[in-house]
Amino acid sequence: MTRRERARELAGGRPLVSGDLTTVTWLTGLATDIEYGPSPFTVAPLVLLDPDGSLLAFVSEDEAGGVGEGIETRTFPGFAVEDVDRSALATLLAREALTCAREVAADVASLPGALVAALLGDGVEIVDVSSELRAARAVKDADEVAAIRASTSIADAGQKAAREAAAGGRTELDVWSEARAAMERAAGGRVPLLADLVSGERTAEVGGPPSDRVLHDGDLVLVDLVPRLDAYWSDSCATLSVGEALPEMRRAHDVARAALERAVAMCRPGTRAADVDAAARGVIAEGGGTYPHHTGHGIGTSFHEEPRVIPDTARVLEEGMVVALEPGSYGDRWGVRVEQVLLVTDGEPEILSGHDLSL
Amino acid sequence: MTRRERARELAGGRPLVSGDLTTVTWLTGLATDIEYGPSPFTVAPLVLLDPDGSLLAFVSEDEAGGVGEGIETRTFPGFAVEDVDRSALATLLAREALTCAREVAADVASLPGALVAALLGDGVEIVDVSSELRAARAVKDADEVAAIRASTSIADAGQKAAREAAAGGRTELDVWSEARAAMERAAGGRVPLLADLVSGERTAEVGGPPSDRVLHDGDLVLVDLVPRLDAYWSDSCATLSVGEALPEMRRAHDVARAALERAVAMCRPGTRAADVDAAARGVIAEGGGTYPHHTGHGIGTSFHEEPRVIPDTARVLEEGMVVALEPGSYGDRWGVRVEQVLLVTDGEPEILSGHDLSL
Repeated sequence: MTRRERARELAGGRPLVSGDLTTVTWLTGLATDIEYGPSPFTVAPLVLLDPDGSLLAFVSEDEAGGVGEGIETRTFPGFAVEDVDRSALATLLAREALTCAREVAADVASLPGALVAALLGDGVEIVDVSSELRAARAVKDADEVAAIRASTSIADAGQKAAREAAAGGRTELDVWSEARAAMERAAGGRVPLLADLVSGERTAEVGGPPSDRVLHDGDLVLVDLVPRLDAYWSDSCATLSVGEALPEMRRAHDVARAALERAVAMCRPGTRAADVDAAARGVIAEGGGTYPHHTGHGIGTSFHEEPRVIPDTARVLEEGMVVALEPGSYGDRWGVRVEQVLLVTDGEPEILSGHDLSL
Repeated sequence: MTRRERARELAGGRPLVSGDLTTVTWLTGLATDIEYGPSPFTVAPLVLLDPDGSLLAFVSEDEAGGVGEGIETRTFPGFAVEDVDRSALATLLAREALTCAREVAADVASLPGALVAALLGDGVEIVDVSSELRAARAVKDADEVAAIRASTSIADAGQKAAREAAAGGRTELDVWSEARAAMERAAGGRVPLLADLVSGERTAEVGGPPSDRVLHDGDLVLVDLVPRLDAYWSDSCATLSVGEALPEMRRAHDVARAALERAVAMCRPGTRAADVDAAARGVIAEGGGTYPHHTGHGIGTSFHEEPRVIPDTARVLEEGMVVALEPGSYGDRWGVRVEQVLLVTDGEPEILSGHDLSL
């Protein structure tokens, strides 16, 4: 089944409406600008999946071109000199399209308040299908895997540039700027980017944004780059050393790589995500370490989605899932983490990441 | 009146609730991460202003530290290994705080759908005060002006770096990366940034993101940088030339600067925004040019807000408003634009921008 077919199935014969950007992007391909928060020239787009399988996107005129082929759009004004109440217009468009509905399936938390008020006022029952949508998004179609491959190559370019830039006397921000510039050069344009870039004692804090801290010989630098190319995210992490690393840093790093390898090898259809999590934590614990975060997670139209690889979860891996695994080990004065993205296949997992994992 | 007092007044004795990030930031000082879209580890914060004047912020544990002093916070979990329904928890917190309310004032479009559904289910009437909030945000308190001064100095640093970087053989992305790096160095950390960075024939299109287009002698480069430092945005635009500009480019640029000067000089309390708009358009028209966008707008916790400086508007300038003015002139093959940010005082406007406006 394609993602549209899965979405149709989970809606159970009802129209499905979503204002969750990750779901809108998943169904329509539309990747909106996300780097500067809310814009007065647009409101969040909405998607409506009809029970007959057709899709309708409610979107500003400026963004309509980003909606995939064969998907109908109903637009409200984008950039305009005059005053426009885009929120009211978007609500009106969606409400009109749902005139005959008695029940709609939705991730209700994501819907704009004005639309919910209008639908409830019309006597429409809203059935929440948020968790079903999250589960449906976890398995990728072939075009989604291709898109994640492309965004992973951008992450690789960033990791390479960060490794080249990290040197004594430079700041975390210097390394960051060069990594980002390399990614944007590789992409040919702006790249939305979530990242940890911390060095020295900051690596003990697991993550954080780049600062003006100056790198010194003996520092570790933890670089976790999460770029979005077009509609799809990737993820990657490496830890590298400036000058010579202490022997205990090298040991912890070797253990983290071993934990990653062990976890990667387990990612086959039918494996419980909790077992992958336990295996990775086990390798780290044998080496005397620990980490306070998840072992991994899916990526797609969001940077952290199902399947979450955590303890005590019933999730089971399936062919077509794309998973980022990122075990680490953190002490009082420094920490290490390594991460790769993989595709769950019917055989061995395919590692999509191509960046250097050495210290 | 302070902004909190203005907000209390417009709520008319009702509790005021908002999920609009620009309003939440305005009342609480909280500047959330906005550079990578929705995060699975948080949901949008909410603010509640009680009729007694006290503020309550509903926010993730990870973001609570960003809420201003003296403002009570009620938190839901932030980053967590285990699964958490943050949306449901945030809705629950807000609903509990509104238990006794029969009416609430809100910018209803901004409220999460789940909260609206809960409030309506409880029989609460929601009175929309979006436009009143937009008007109230237009006049800045002294601490807001100080914050905009600081973000404007970041914009200045970016303009300086862009001017130094723009040279034949370099790409728009090269100029962009250097400008952004300079701004982040000046800020000591990441800086959310909206920008136009276009060159050559692309300047005729008014704006757009940086591309891999290579700069050539005789090109204009239009650089519009809109950074947020902490909670407040600034805005700035300059147009510069690579090598020697054509005489007609110089003339158009001189006219744009004259239009800007004329518009700036008019910004005094009591002046109609539409008159400022008409004056700037008039100078450009006398020079044989035109522009398809607004003449200006307010800045604050959003990058484009009241007072919008456009035709056919009844808006009147008031002391304490901060306005970005940006007349331009665009032809078939190139365009120019210049922009400064000013504070409306009881006398002459104070120009906050310090960047070089020369061609």
